[in-house]
Amino acid sequence: MAATEAKKAKTDKDQAKQEFLRVFERLRDEIVNDDLLAGQPEASKKWVKEMMDYNVPLGKLNRGMAVLDVVQSLAGSKGAELSEEEVFRAQALGWCIEFLQAYFLVADDIMDSSITRRGQPCWYRQPHVGMVAINDGIILEACIFRILKKHFSALPAYVHLLDLFHEVTYQTAHGQLLDTTTAPIGTVDLSRYTLDTYLRIVTYKTAYYTFYLPVAAGLRLAGVTDPAAYKLAEEICVTMGQYFQIQDDYLDCYGDPEVIGKIGTDIQDNKCSWLVVQVLQRASEEQKKVIEESYGKDDEEAVQRVKAVYRELDLEALFKQYEQESYDKLVKTIEGQDLLPQAVFTMLLKKIYKRQK
Amino acid sequence: MAATEAKKAKTDKDQAKQEFLRVFERLRDEIVNDDLLAGQPEASKKWVKEMMDYNVPLGKLNRGMAVLDVVQSLAGSKGAELSEEEVFRAQALGWCIEFLQAYFLVADDIMDSSITRRGQPCWYRQPHVGMVAINDGIILEACIFRILKKHFSALPAYVHLLDLFHEVTYQTAHGQLLDTTTAPIGTVDLSRYTLDTYLRIVTYKTAYYTFYLPVAAGLRLAGVTDPAAYKLAEEICVTMGQYFQIQDDYLDCYGDPEVIGKIGTDIQDNKCSWLVVQVLQRASEEQKKVIEESYGKDDEEAVQRVKAVYRELDLEALFKQYEQESYDKLVKTIEGQDLLPQAVFTMLLKKIYKRQK
Repeated sequence: MAATEAKKAKTDKDQAKQEFLRVFERLRDEIVNDDLLAGQPEASKKWVKEMMDYNVPLGKLNRGMAVLDVVQSLAGSKGAELSEEEVFRAQALGWCIEFLQAYFLVADDIMDSSITRRGQPCWYRQPHVGMVAINDGIILEACIFRILKKHFSALPAYVHLLDLFHEVTYQTAHGQLLDTTTAPIGTVDLSRYTLDTYLRIVTYKTAYYTFYLPVAAGLRLAGVTDPAAYKLAEEICVTMGQYFQIQDDYLDCYGDPEVIGKIGTDIQDNKCSWLVVQVLQRASEEQKKVIEESYGKDDEEAVQRVKAVYRELDLEALFKQYEQESYDKLVKTIEGQDLLPQAVFTMLLKKIYKRQK
Repeated sequence: MAATEAKKAKTDKDQAKQEFLRVFERLRDEIVNDDLLAGQPEASKKWVKEMMDYNVPLGKLNRGMAVLDVVQSLAGSKGAELSEEEVFRAQALGWCIEFLQAYFLVADDIMDSSITRRGQPCWYRQPHVGMVAINDGIILEACIFRILKKHFSALPAYVHLLDLFHEVTYQTAHGQLLDTTTAPIGTVDLSRYTLDTYLRIVTYKTAYYTFYLPVAAGLRLAGVTDPAAYKLAEEICVTMGQYFQIQDDYLDCYGDPEVIGKIGTDIQDNKCSWLVVQVLQRASEEQKKVIEESYGKDDEEAVQRVKAVYRELDLEALFKQYEQESYDKLVKTIEGQDLLPQAVFTMLLKKIYKRQK
């Protein structure tokens, strides 16, 4: 019975994803055929279409699909059903988040000299692209505002949606900057890897655009205007985003590569990961020395020495404890308020709690 | 007498520039001390301040300062004077254009592998910066929307200003894309250098943000809402922008390096310049062969062979003829309408007509 249910849930999810992807195709075609591109040479239109297809729809799409979930939770709490148009708008708004994510990833991959992304070469690594990818990033971001203008400018929420995307873009760029100034390329200084700095980077670089943005966008679309509701959503989403990134850091080291689809390299890459931050708070002088000598080295033996210290300090147990505490705290906050339907948040939390990938 | 007037005009201009620069300092300090950055580590604040100082205020500032000129022309035509606050707003809006320009230049310099910009190394060439410059570009663009939110969100024009900046950003990125697809890096194919393509690139890559944006921003600030006024401004500004870029291409080859402050390299750099476009339309088979063999080569003798063909076809006279015709056409359009005060456009035209630098 449980297996049947799981199968049905998977089918539902696949179907939702297919519907979401159809909206992408519509939005993409609208952009390629809109006023500005309509009069341009074929080569430009072809470039933009290919560039969008390569960079926008191939992720997990959780951020983008969350907008519809939020809007549905809000409607459901009032016993209402969404019209076809309302569903489309929530999906289009979701795609705006996916375009924003694509913009960040295209830029991040150049900055980090990354090789692959979503199982294919990073866009800038395509021989015909190179640094032109920077301009493609600018176009990807501009597409957000084309979509918003076309489909949302008649709504009272329009200006709030513009402000929201601007605010979150600024926050994310600051997270990136914090990350850069904490671990400048070519330097290793573990003394900067404090928990405060870690949480600050995670909050700005990931939490706002991954959790707060889909929720706040959904609230705006549903016509919520109470600033207290946004304040509350921010508080919950930031905590959830921290939890999500800490899981990510944990899975990079302890996850099953078969399940997560990649082999973690945070240790080699000198990442300011939650694991190393915790170790540095707890390590003996001797253990600290091992970390200092071996962290950030692309050498399997060095990696194993770091992992041995992780085991000595039982980071696995520490993570499990953190996970439980964080979950309990989130549930308490969600259940302890009556500004917003609990389902808005529980449905997000359900997707990430104890995830294995 | 003429000399005294010229001196006074220069002093007025210097003073206007000083006042404009003081507004930059205020806006910069507001950003560095605003809610988001206030709680961030000193290193982040320092980075943002230095990055803005390096990239935003060191250009000619013509685009940014034009907004106040436009707003003053509109007020003057009604016999009104601007309040201190109205002057500040026009200047702040002007700085938004300079932030946008900075964003494009930081990105362009990476894409073109440029060495210097405004007499100093390009930002990405600073050893501590590198590809992090891409994120700084994102921050520079985000600053536009911080400034607009802080100083303009209470005005009815706010949402129109947001739309305007989005639209022009999209147009400019498309101009860049057109340029890229016309002359992909590493290829030389002069058959693509047609006048139609040239004008299209210039219109999107330069004219919209250099001429249309300051004018349209000024019109919005002054409360103009008639779409016909914007349509007219677009037509005039695009023509002016084409003229401006064609001058630039002309001066690259025929200008006095002492006056323009640089030695032109469009021929070596294989640029789709107005000069080569004209030559390709007029050249004999023999002349065409010279161009094909020598254009885009970093070799003084090749450059001289190209310049010899330019002389044979008397491009200098062709440019002078174009300049006069374009000027006459612009004046006729400006004088033949009564939607907007002529001063809005004549004051811009005066600044660029027959410029030597």
